[in-house]
Amino acid sequence: MKTTVTEILGIKYPIVQGGMQWVGRAGLVAAVSNAGGLGILTALTQPSPQALREEIEKTKTLTDKPFGVNVTILPSRQPVPYDEYVKVIIESGIKIIETAGRSPAPFIPALKAAGVKIIHKATSLKHCLSAEKIGVDIVSVDGFECAGHPGETDIPGLVLLARAAEELTIPFIASGGIANGRGLVAAMALGAAGINMGTRFVVTKEAPVHENIKQFIVDCDETDTVLIFRSLQNTGRVLRNAVSEEVIEIENRPGKTDFADIAHLVVGARGREGLESGDINGGLIWAGLVTGLIHDIPTCDVLISRIIQEAEVVIQEQMKALSC
Amino acid sequence: MKTTVTEILGIKYPIVQGGMQWVGRAGLVAAVSNAGGLGILTALTQPSPQALREEIEKTKTLTDKPFGVNVTILPSRQPVPYDEYVKVIIESGIKIIETAGRSPAPFIPALKAAGVKIIHKATSLKHCLSAEKIGVDIVSVDGFECAGHPGETDIPGLVLLARAAEELTIPFIASGGIANGRGLVAAMALGAAGINMGTRFVVTKEAPVHENIKQFIVDCDETDTVLIFRSLQNTGRVLRNAVSEEVIEIENRPGKTDFADIAHLVVGARGREGLESGDINGGLIWAGLVTGLIHDIPTCDVLISRIIQEAEVVIQEQMKALSC
Repeated sequence: MKTTVTEILGIKYPIVQGGMQWVGRAGLVAAVSNAGGLGILTALTQPSPQALREEIEKTKTLTDKPFGVNVTILPSRQPVPYDEYVKVIIESGIKIIETAGRSPAPFIPALKAAGVKIIHKATSLKHCLSAEKIGVDIVSVDGFECAGHPGETDIPGLVLLARAAEELTIPFIASGGIANGRGLVAAMALGAAGINMGTRFVVTKEAPVHENIKQFIVDCDETDTVLIFRSLQNTGRVLRNAVSEEVIEIENRPGKTDFADIAHLVVGARGREGLESGDINGGLIWAGLVTGLIHDIPTCDVLISRIIQEAEVVIQEQMKALSC
Repeated sequence: MKTTVTEILGIKYPIVQGGMQWVGRAGLVAAVSNAGGLGILTALTQPSPQALREEIEKTKTLTDKPFGVNVTILPSRQPVPYDEYVKVIIESGIKIIETAGRSPAPFIPALKAAGVKIIHKATSLKHCLSAEKIGVDIVSVDGFECAGHPGETDIPGLVLLARAAEELTIPFIASGGIANGRGLVAAMALGAAGINMGTRFVVTKEAPVHENIKQFIVDCDETDTVLIFRSLQNTGRVLRNAVSEEVIEIENRPGKTDFADIAHLVVGARGREGLESGDINGGLIWAGLVTGLIHDIPTCDVLISRIIQEAEVVIQEQMKALSC
């Protein structure tokens, strides 16, 4: 399958495994890239730029296909050495970076000079257009359905992607709400040149996530996610569990929510502990509405092959409807 | 274009103009049906069953193509003679009914006996499956994007339609978030056998809506709708204007919202007055997120032809991507 995105990224299928804190590590990334998609390491999952350098080298030993690195730029109490992470990415010869959160503008000159293609995640048309303006190569258009940070405007993919198709001149991929071949073809119909999947890749054999968490996502359906941190204007979509219900209870208390009230619940380590220990109430579990469309725990290769086969069937059916 | 839905309904294109209070009248309905789609009269827009009978007869003088009648079954302070409306529909020889709100189960035996096909609107997978179980012919699967009543589970079309494709055995159409050919093909990719459009048909030359309101929808974008009545568990999606902002202000007051507090804002007449007077602050204006995708005021014929042409181009492009 050939699209502008497969051409720009040098991959076989237009399927990207987006950055995921604690999940985007060498084994999963290499499995996705070996299956013909684009695996993406998550830089800040590594404790230091040097550790990222080692993770990149480890990934190179596992695949000779292209893979990328995600850098999510968020406000933080402890300063994060973003410059150094970006320097490691460039020095390691990585040619694809995925940025998210704040604008990647400060890093773009250095990335362009090194021939690195930039995918930037955006949850609103306004941010899509800003990304295009500052020179990113591909926008990852993240709908209301997505895990993690869907933004505050609540525009789902059906509308947001169709709007992106009207306004963007650079290629974009669809993120949020997609887990199968139907989703891939729908995204392409809406103008996307490929898809990004997060939650779907968490529930694969190669994801470094405890089996209990994978099974919990299989068991949940599309009504089992909740939105947290809305009161902080930093909305997150997670699975309903004891931790997210506690957060919501705090947010719903009369009066203004103070970040400090819930800070003990939100430190990244809680998410990591849950993912690794297998306690479904051990932390926040970031997952999108596609939870409802996830019914098994395949290898990345089986998953990607299946999505492409499903997509082929769907496109053939559409041709048939058209020719009648 | 041939799908299970065009076959069941006896129409040329799989495009349905869903029921809309104050808008679904003879002129618009006939224009949609004459253009190859399915126009649907809204029964309760008529003040009495006898008035509906006359509106049906009027529509028959304007088109010889199939059209339907919507019956929305909602709790009401003043009893509505639903039985009589349904009796008129059957006696008038109408062969397609669209039901919404509560279950149409009580009316199904009489409708089936008269050979009337039943389209039922549902905003969750649970309600889709209930509709299938009681014997409706087609489900109109209404995503979070839709105008009017999106339900309380907030599942957008990308996920809800893909889930419906997994679970339903009867055909379904996609409702909410669709205004163009990209949306039609995306819906079909997600398993729908056609689309329902509401807001898009409000902004056509034939819709009985004041020009100012049509232009207001053209001028608004996808971020200009708001959700009201969430505190009453009866969420509605409308455009942001003075009336909806007043409703939200009341809903956000500390303490439980009382329906009586906002009742003066919600009586149907307020919506009708706005639509007919052209005062954009004259009442609630029900509109979906597709507002962002509406840029002109075409005739229904131009609109439907354009959607089909756009869909053909999109499907051809997908075939091309696949064959590379």
